[in-house]
Amino acid sequence: MAKSKKSALQTAKGVSSPEITNKDSIQYLKKRRRSKIDINELVSAILTQDITALSKAITLIESKKPKHLDLANALIKTCLPYANNSVRIGITGVPGVGKSTFIEAFGNHLLSLGKRVAVLAVDPSSSLTKGSILGDKTRMVNLAKNENVFIRPSASGDTLGGVARKTRETITLCEAAGFDVILIETVGVGQSEITVHSMVDFFLLLKLAGAGDELQGIKRGIIEMADAIIINKADGGNIEAANIAKTEFNKALHLYPEKKSNWLPKVSVCSATENNGIEAIWGMILEYLDITSKNNHFNNKRNEQDKFWLLQTVEEKLKSSFFNQEKIKTELKKQLELLEHNKTTPFAAADYLLSL
Amino acid sequence: MAKSKKSALQTAKGVSSPEITNKDSIQYLKKRRRSKIDINELVSAILTQDITALSKAITLIESKKPKHLDLANALIKTCLPYANNSVRIGITGVPGVGKSTFIEAFGNHLLSLGKRVAVLAVDPSSSLTKGSILGDKTRMVNLAKNENVFIRPSASGDTLGGVARKTRETITLCEAAGFDVILIETVGVGQSEITVHSMVDFFLLLKLAGAGDELQGIKRGIIEMADAIIINKADGGNIEAANIAKTEFNKALHLYPEKKSNWLPKVSVCSATENNGIEAIWGMILEYLDITSKNNHFNNKRNEQDKFWLLQTVEEKLKSSFFNQEKIKTELKKQLELLEHNKTTPFAAADYLLSL
Repeated sequence: MAKSKKSALQTAKGVSSPEITNKDSIQYLKKRRRSKIDINELVSAILTQDITALSKAITLIESKKPKHLDLANALIKTCLPYANNSVRIGITGVPGVGKSTFIEAFGNHLLSLGKRVAVLAVDPSSSLTKGSILGDKTRMVNLAKNENVFIRPSASGDTLGGVARKTRETITLCEAAGFDVILIETVGVGQSEITVHSMVDFFLLLKLAGAGDELQGIKRGIIEMADAIIINKADGGNIEAANIAKTEFNKALHLYPEKKSNWLPKVSVCSATENNGIEAIWGMILEYLDITSKNNHFNNKRNEQDKFWLLQTVEEKLKSSFFNQEKIKTELKKQLELLEHNKTTPFAAADYLLSL
Repeated sequence: MAKSKKSALQTAKGVSSPEITNKDSIQYLKKRRRSKIDINELVSAILTQDITALSKAITLIESKKPKHLDLANALIKTCLPYANNSVRIGITGVPGVGKSTFIEAFGNHLLSLGKRVAVLAVDPSSSLTKGSILGDKTRMVNLAKNENVFIRPSASGDTLGGVARKTRETITLCEAAGFDVILIETVGVGQSEITVHSMVDFFLLLKLAGAGDELQGIKRGIIEMADAIIINKADGGNIEAANIAKTEFNKALHLYPEKKSNWLPKVSVCSATENNGIEAIWGMILEYLDITSKNNHFNNKRNEQDKFWLLQTVEEKLKSSFFNQEKIKTELKKQLELLEHNKTTPFAAADYLLSL
């Protein structure tokens, strides 16, 4: 994951603003110039690992103002050549499993290895709960104050798709700002785990050792997505239970067919509070990176994720632009009433709406 | 579920063909008249419970010829007022669990109660496997020869959406033909279970008692969909294991939140070959119908299913008509290449494709 920040920076500074060819309007010209300069300045600052510039850039891509959209797109495009060099790690687990404490311990270990660490979050409910995850940095005391760490709470958004786009773009910005490892935390419920899984290289599921029913209450889909299951809080009287859980999960994981990565998901125990087992988890991830860069799965997976997000974005927009038409809203309501009275079929109603 | 077939039939015969107002073209008139007469004749025959007419009607809706599409739509529309009176039961389970044998035993019990039973299937792979399910009627000997039974293998289709539409329309036709219970079998793998779940009132999951690991290898999503889990082949030396499995599944089911139906999914054991426990399963379904018709969940669920299919159909068609454009095919390929070389983002590529 080593990379030359200097050369990237030089290239960036060597980029000159495109010539303005349309000189008809002085106002237009001024506006264009001002915008262009801002973006180039911003990108240059990001490439020097300026955290204030990074924050400002993320605020720009999160902006809902239409006038910021073009700027945000230009910003991302300019950063693209300097992106893609980090390891992206997703971290999920139900509330109470100790995600923040784990990130604090894991992040500190990475810092001790000289890595720069960004911590992001995907929580589509954050606009309601005002950021229930990562909002409270008290459990990441050391990380929060380290200059090689950047912590950013979840983007807010009406849709998971919107939050996802902003998070993906934030990853690009953080990579341009030279972060080596990007941790993306998500809440252990619902669709947001699938979303995070689709934007990371390695997906960690945090669990607690329970009372002998480790497999109860766990969503099968999550196990299938996990590249590793970490049993946290393996300390004090919990150690034995954690080891039993490890055996159980290992058995469960062996029931699944081998993954395309040739990576057999692993189970690890750790105690984030006592800082036990944290090093081994990073070792495991390095092993994964070694295997998947040799068999090219690492790049293939990123390409597939890009393709997924392209298609996903197109589909969401096709739907929203169709269903947001006033005519369709009115007629859909009528068709639903006809349906309810058994006067049409779902298929005839669909054909009708599409014919409008 | 009692209904007056006679009055429905009288109404149907009272329907006169709409007047043809456009008399400019004799050919057009002849064509229209011939079509109209066919459909009305076909519907009248269906309403007299004529199985040959029903088969012919299903063949019409399954036809891929464009000229049959309008006829098929008219046919369904004419049948709609006589539909909706059956109990629709979905049956799933992995190959080897004994679905056909179960349907034979269950169907025979329904026949003994004076019910008329239609057996359909949803198997999107049937065009490849030439109908792996329901193709072989040897395990449904008694059902297959009974005049109050109608068995139809899965419609073939390129997409699950296509198969689903044809199956939904076949349900309408079978209901118009006076079938009281419609059993819809599906293969125990993948998306087709979700599809069948979205078109039935009650969803049965068939299981075998295993070697103490009943919850292993079962897809969580399936358990969440099931209104009942039936442990089949509870006979001979299997009885004890089946009862243990029953306890295990009951425990597992209690972990899920209560359903909107107020119905707590139940676990039953049965032996289809020895005809044990079959009556109790029908009793359980009657109990479900009683509860859900009182709290109106039965109708609400059907309405929600209709709405789901409407939206699903629109979304699928929006996607296919967008991505099937030659221009989009070409440009999508180019954008995917740019993506692969890190020269655009999934979101910028999506915006570009949508701007074409």
